[in-house]
Amino acid sequence: MRHAKVKQRVPTLGEPPGTLLPVGDAKVEASSITLLEFGPQELCETRFESVAAGLAHQSSQPVRWLNVYGLHDVGVMQAIGERFGLHPLVQEDILNNRQRPKLEDYGDYLFIATRVFDFPPNGGRLRYNQMYLVIGKDFVLSFQEKPTGVFEAVRERLRSCRGALRSKGADYLAYGLIDAIIDDYFGVLSQFTEHVERTDQMLLHGHEQGVLHKVQRLKHDCLKLRRSILPLREILLTMMRGEYRLIQPDTQVYLRDAYDHTMHVIESLEMSREMVSDMLDLYLSTQSHRLNLQMRVLTVFSMIFMPLTLIAGIYGMNFENMPELHWHYGYFAVLGLMASIAIGLIWLFSRRNWI
Amino acid sequence: MRHAKVKQRVPTLGEPPGTLLPVGDAKVEASSITLLEFGPQELCETRFESVAAGLAHQSSQPVRWLNVYGLHDVGVMQAIGERFGLHPLVQEDILNNRQRPKLEDYGDYLFIATRVFDFPPNGGRLRYNQMYLVIGKDFVLSFQEKPTGVFEAVRERLRSCRGALRSKGADYLAYGLIDAIIDDYFGVLSQFTEHVERTDQMLLHGHEQGVLHKVQRLKHDCLKLRRSILPLREILLTMMRGEYRLIQPDTQVYLRDAYDHTMHVIESLEMSREMVSDMLDLYLSTQSHRLNLQMRVLTVFSMIFMPLTLIAGIYGMNFENMPELHWHYGYFAVLGLMASIAIGLIWLFSRRNWI
Amino acid sequence: MRHAKVKQRVPTLGEPPGTLLPVGDAKVEASSITLLEFGPQELCETRFESVAAGLAHQSSQPVRWLNVYGLHDVGVMQAIGERFGLHPLVQEDILNNRQRPKLEDYGDYLFIATRVFDFPPNGGRLRYNQMYLVIGKDFVLSFQEKPTGVFEAVRERLRSCRGALRSKGADYLAYGLIDAIIDDYFGVLSQFTEHVERTDQMLLHGHEQGVLHKVQRLKHDCLKLRRSILPLREILLTMMRGEYRLIQPDTQVYLRDAYDHTMHVIESLEMSREMVSDMLDLYLSTQSHRLNLQMRVLTVFSMIFMPLTLIAGIYGMNFENMPELHWHYGYFAVLGLMASIAIGLIWLFSRRNWI
Amino acid sequence: MRHAKVKQRVPTLGEPPGTLLPVGDAKVEASSITLLEFGPQELCETRFESVAAGLAHQSSQPVRWLNVYGLHDVGVMQAIGERFGLHPLVQEDILNNRQRPKLEDYGDYLFIATRVFDFPPNGGRLRYNQMYLVIGKDFVLSFQEKPTGVFEAVRERLRSCRGALRSKGADYLAYGLIDAIIDDYFGVLSQFTEHVERTDQMLLHGHEQGVLHKVQRLKHDCLKLRRSILPLREILLTMMRGEYRLIQPDTQVYLRDAYDHTMHVIESLEMSREMVSDMLDLYLSTQSHRLNLQMRVLTVFSMIFMPLTLIAGIYGMNFENMPELHWHYGYFAVLGLMASIAIGLIWLFSRRNWI
Amino acid sequence: MRHAKVKQRVPTLGEPPGTLLPVGDAKVEASSITLLEFGPQELCETRFESVAAGLAHQSSQPVRWLNVYGLHDVGVMQAIGERFGLHPLVQEDILNNRQRPKLEDYGDYLFIATRVFDFPPNGGRLRYNQMYLVIGKDFVLSFQEKPTGVFEAVRERLRSCRGALRSKGADYLAYGLIDAIIDDYFGVLSQFTEHVERTDQMLLHGHEQGVLHKVQRLKHDCLKLRRSILPLREILLTMMRGEYRLIQPDTQVYLRDAYDHTMHVIESLEMSREMVSDMLDLYLSTQSHRLNLQMRVLTVFSMIFMPLTLIAGIYGMNFENMPELHWHYGYFAVLGLMASIAIGLIWLFSRRNWI
Repeated sequence: MRHAKVKQRVPTLGEPPGTLLPVGDAKVEASSITLLEFGPQELCETRFESVAAGLAHQSSQPVRWLNVYGLHDVGVMQAIGERFGLHPLVQEDILNNRQRPKLEDYGDYLFIATRVFDFPPNGGRLRYNQMYLVIGKDFVLSFQEKPTGVFEAVRERLRSCRGALRSKGADYLAYGLIDAIIDDYFGVLSQFTEHVERTDQMLLHGHEQGVLHKVQRLKHDCLKLRRSILPLREILLTMMRGEYRLIQPDTQVYLRDAYDHTMHVIESLEMSREMVSDMLDLYLSTQSHRLNLQMRVLTVFSMIFMPLTLIAGIYGMNFENMPELHWHYGYFAVLGLMASIAIGLIWLFSRRNWI
Repeated sequence: MRHAKVKQRVPTLGEPPGTLLPVGDAKVEASSITLLEFGPQELCETRFESVAAGLAHQSSQPVRWLNVYGLHDVGVMQAIGERFGLHPLVQEDILNNRQRPKLEDYGDYLFIATRVFDFPPNGGRLRYNQMYLVIGKDFVLSFQEKPTGVFEAVRERLRSCRGALRSKGADYLAYGLIDAIIDDYFGVLSQFTEHVERTDQMLLHGHEQGVLHKVQRLKHDCLKLRRSILPLREILLTMMRGEYRLIQPDTQVYLRDAYDHTMHVIESLEMSREMVSDMLDLYLSTQSHRLNLQMRVLTVFSMIFMPLTLIAGIYGMNFENMPELHWHYGYFAVLGLMASIAIGLIWLFSRRNWI
Repeated sequence: MRHAKVKQRVPTLGEPPGTLLPVGDAKVEASSITLLEFGPQELCETRFESVAAGLAHQSSQPVRWLNVYGLHDVGVMQAIGERFGLHPLVQEDILNNRQRPKLEDYGDYLFIATRVFDFPPNGGRLRYNQMYLVIGKDFVLSFQEKPTGVFEAVRERLRSCRGALRSKGADYLAYGLIDAIIDDYFGVLSQFTEHVERTDQMLLHGHEQGVLHKVQRLKHDCLKLRRSILPLREILLTMMRGEYRLIQPDTQVYLRDAYDHTMHVIESLEMSREMVSDMLDLYLSTQSHRLNLQMRVLTVFSMIFMPLTLIAGIYGMNFENMPELHWHYGYFAVLGLMASIAIGLIWLFSRRNWI
Repeated sequence: MRHAKVKQRVPTLGEPPGTLLPVGDAKVEASSITLLEFGPQELCETRFESVAAGLAHQSSQPVRWLNVYGLHDVGVMQAIGERFGLHPLVQEDILNNRQRPKLEDYGDYLFIATRVFDFPPNGGRLRYNQMYLVIGKDFVLSFQEKPTGVFEAVRERLRSCRGALRSKGADYLAYGLIDAIIDDYFGVLSQFTEHVERTDQMLLHGHEQGVLHKVQRLKHDCLKLRRSILPLREILLTMMRGEYRLIQPDTQVYLRDAYDHTMHVIESLEMSREMVSDMLDLYLSTQSHRLNLQMRVLTVFSMIFMPLTLIAGIYGMNFENMPELHWHYGYFAVLGLMASIAIGLIWLFSRRNWI
Repeated sequence: MRHAKVKQRVPTLGEPPGTLLPVGDAKVEASSITLLEFGPQELCETRFESVAAGLAHQSSQPVRWLNVYGLHDVGVMQAIGERFGLHPLVQEDILNNRQRPKLEDYGDYLFIATRVFDFPPNGGRLRYNQMYLVIGKDFVLSFQEKPTGVFEAVRERLRSCRGALRSKGADYLAYGLIDAIIDDYFGVLSQFTEHVERTDQMLLHGHEQGVLHKVQRLKHDCLKLRRSILPLREILLTMMRGEYRLIQPDTQVYLRDAYDHTMHVIESLEMSREMVSDMLDLYLSTQSHRLNLQMRVLTVFSMIFMPLTLIAGIYGMNFENMPELHWHYGYFAVLGLMASIAIGLIWLFSRRNWI
């Protein structure tokens, strides 16, 4: 709970650990709780109006999936925590919407904290939504800050009975949810790559100062994504290794697949990151190239005009005895001299590839 | 004791190890010793006027927490060291106010050296205060250079009996103190980030030479923080692993939580560090951009004025036979020529986006 | 299957894992399936027209090698998958032509995903073709996007009974195929190095802006190659270690050899990579050198002409009382003064090595 | 013995290993051998005039410490080697005054090679003196190139019976010597930091080319120190781990303390290193800043003077019909025009913050 | 055999592994084979004219050392391979003169591939010669591309019976050979350092463009050396660890010594590498410094001459009413004004340290 973002004062400073206090702004007004119970034959979907109703509910299906939108309602959290026997620290973590991605084993259940990203539609900076999973023997709890639609496909598959979800246990459902999160990363990454490419185009054409700031923002977004996705790899790796008895050997093959997808996301991210860092290099070397070009133009111009101006200055002197001034074609001779100097210099420069 | 800051001559050079000599300036005049004894039912707070009084004191509560402000009093150290059976090297370390963060296992107790940071109110550089914890079976000793208020919240919680502190052992109290230290880091980090942002703003507007020095100071402060907080992660990691029999399995879950918070602090620190390093890049590329701009202005100006000056120079020559000089509208023709050359060049430059 | 390239929308989003859907464009119109069965004495080559024909086929030889061109035909995949007992995730992976190189152990068989590279003949960017191997006790399945000719040499050796291929098992055949893939890398690397050297030459002579983009493209190609070849090293390392019972101890010595070749490829790649990064350094320092040169020329020119122009300007003033103007040789004296100033400055510059 | 500094030809090339040949210049003329024997009660100090005298000497005290100055005397080495049963390779290493810091376990004794540093008093580059320790069950041998005074404090403590040295074994004496070496590093580091700061000051004020070379020399010195001190950390780490039965468990706590001091030295070194590398950055960005400044001044000057010179040039033309020339206040009007142009431009520049 | 250098087409593409084909150009015309058999008492040296003669030879001494110059003779290789029972892959590797340094354990013998370097006498680029060792129970085989003289010292020691070589086994002989190779590295490194220093001197004086290319060549040579010497460290490390029963525990102490020498070589190499990379930095900052200097000169010159030229221009205007022109000392007043402006500006610049 004290993990509040660094910039804002930590609100629960001094509270004993395990005290349930929501941290961060509530993104939805009231928590919304949905329960999906299912077995190979049946699926039962319930939307609870009140916590009391939920506590009274008796389940008869092999697997239960409880999804909660809204992470700020202490009462809801306590009720659920009591019902499923969650450790006070887990409850505290879930009420906090700023948790590093991690996996913690509490014996009877696994607690997973992760994040889902999106770009605001009107083109702002990358945002993230905290997401928590609790995986038990016959239940999965999922907590989200606000409805994101990430799990919609899984829900649809459960309802339409496609795939093996209905016939397998809670661990396979958890795999399905993690897989849905990774799918979501692919989409975000594709949007991010678009941003990168658009900025690259701007750099090639516009060259304004503002682009530099944009590049740095992209760099930061990239790091943000990386910091959230890299731990997911570790989480999947430990789940795959079969240390946790809650994960069936059967499901481990699928987790290996999810791990593979995560690696794919990470590699794409690394490529975007390299593109961003190349953009900065390109910007600087373009600047340097342009400086060179301008310098060359200035040098060529100066070298042509300085001698000519000197000649004009010489024949503008007021000495009494300057024989050339009295020559009949002196003026034209000087103009000719100037022209030939100019042409000679231009020829010299073009031979040296300066023009 | 020889670990004195490198720049000042090492004062105890040549003394045998284990000799008790205070190293560093005393930050408080006299040591101040407080004892909190508590159990689930009772809490007893004593402030010792003299070491003798402390030695005579008999404890009746399950957990004792002795807090000492001031690290330079050899007599106090020896008395406490004898009473709690501390190794001479531990005593020597505590008298030294420049110790790297570390955890040492002495069998009957754990010795932890760590640091707390603050920024002086009038805006100077980051300072640190050394802090030592000795965790025994039924006691915790904490040593600080001067009163910092870091443990005030823990003391308050003990007095008001909030949370589980009163009903748990010395290891849980130690966790509480470490957690309070980490909470303190969040505050320092938030101040540090403010400094970074203020300097960033200066860079964007003022562009003075002085900013470079400020950026480097931020860089150094960042490294200082990092060097102190990174070892804390290691300390918590070894405590979590359950190697030490003084730490109850029950407390390990809480230490995992503290570890997580430390990771959070470290990640924020890394982000600040990147911001600082980006600032230097930005500074240099801004410089390069401005150089380019000035160069372009100079080049454009020179290219416009050099031909015009040449023309004026030509018609300032004193040749006898210069027909143009005698034309009635010669002067105005030349002015017109100049104007059209200037306009032509400006058109050319604006087409090339140079203006 | 959701691993589609990041930039295009993921086509199977929301499909349950294990659903067979081809991902990516089909590179050949119809799949083409060939079976090579062989033992020390006999070799039998069959080209199947239809999947049904393949399923009906009964093998009598100790080792079977089934090669499939085309990764998009779901029907073919399902038939083969059923026949050889492939896990749905393996089938899904094979239908996807964008898989990271990896090795997965499914107990009865090993699944290897890898890539083969080529440069398009008309000089475009590096392309890759996905390639999959399934190694069983007495069979090897190889899947390729399109005919690449990589395995032609192995096929030829089998037919002509050269080497030990015919007398050894499926694991040795798999080694042969992997070795053929590594051989192919040598060729691609040689082409890549040619590209690098050609660009290096361009940089030394042409110095156009376009070269920078080319260098960055080479850098990206280099990273692409690296990302595919590095995992191959890991794959061979795990195969060598003798963890998999499908690999005979006898074959492990050969795999060590293949590992060694891979290391050779990687080292050459690293050298090319360094060349590319040196090219950028060279480009920038060449730019800086040239800027210096131009600056020096400009400075020298300005320093010579500015004093001369001033002198001409002074004697072009119209003061009534300027004694020098009336000297008989004043003009020539001034010309002489100018010449000696110019010569003096040139002598000065040449002594300072500026000319 | 072939480890001679790379730049000089290796003198013993082709000699069989274990041949005793001194490598490097002798820094003292004759070897000087001192023996300190001590127990809790007695201390006996002997200075041997000849090797024979030493061999004849019979010891009666529990711990013997033999110190040798001068590493080039083969006869002395052989006599000592025989007496204490040293391996030929150890003898060869000791005769060589260029050994990397290392710890080698020869069963009956540990062989430690390390270095001590100093700056020559007249301000040259960092020098090092090789130092060797052989730690046996009841003896410590120390070999130095020349008297450095590093062990003087230990000797003094032994004589005055301060600390625990007299009552403990050879391993504790060895710890004492290592601790003395680390103490010495603190002093060297303090001198080095002074050099760094002095160069930093030069950079801020003088800006000469020579500073760059000085910075690079500091960088090299820093690396030299690092290369010698980092292995010491490893040496202490292995000694602490209790692998060697010659090290009593009791002494391990003290070695941990020495390890801690070494870490302290290393951290200070890292900070100096960062300061040095920052100095280079600062130098370059200062250069770039100054270039910008000069460019700006030049640009502003040119932009002000070029139009004025053009105007003067125009009214210096010799056209017959130039009405302005005949106006009575024409000259003053033009001067006014010039002044207003100059003022206008200066106002423009000051608004753009260019002046 | 397919490991041919990347740039040339791979010659044995498509050949089955284990086919004996020489790869690379033959550096000597005919292979030359020498056998040294020795025991503590006797040493017998034979130079074989033909392979047949060698096969017929019967050995009676405890240790045999067979040295072969020339790596391209398939017949010789096959004969030796058969006689000593070498694996076909070992034979194939030996025929190839481009092998990465490595150690392979074939049970009855160890196979070591390594390299020896030299600079061509007429000053070209660093070349390497492949070298192979096969270490058996009672024999050592060494294969070299051409006679290099690296082993001459070992041969001499064997003949003159100096050192322990004659009385020890094949493993000690192998150590002797490896030690000789490391000795050779010291020589090459000393030559390389000379090259580095010569280039450094060029950089300090000549500053030509060509130096940059030279620096990059040094960088590449450095990497080449590193890539060959680093694996040698690993080879010695595994040999030291006592995994191979062919290496006697007695010899391991000597291998530790050889390991130490290798570390010494590597450290010297790292220092050279740093010198090379510093040279590039120095080059760039020297460039930048010089640009600054030139810019400063240009700026100072322009700032002095532009006002003077303007004044001359003003008094060269042809207005009728310019009172100053008629002043008797007007001309001299203007000259005085010019001089005082020039002096004033010079004073200003020298105060700002610009001159």
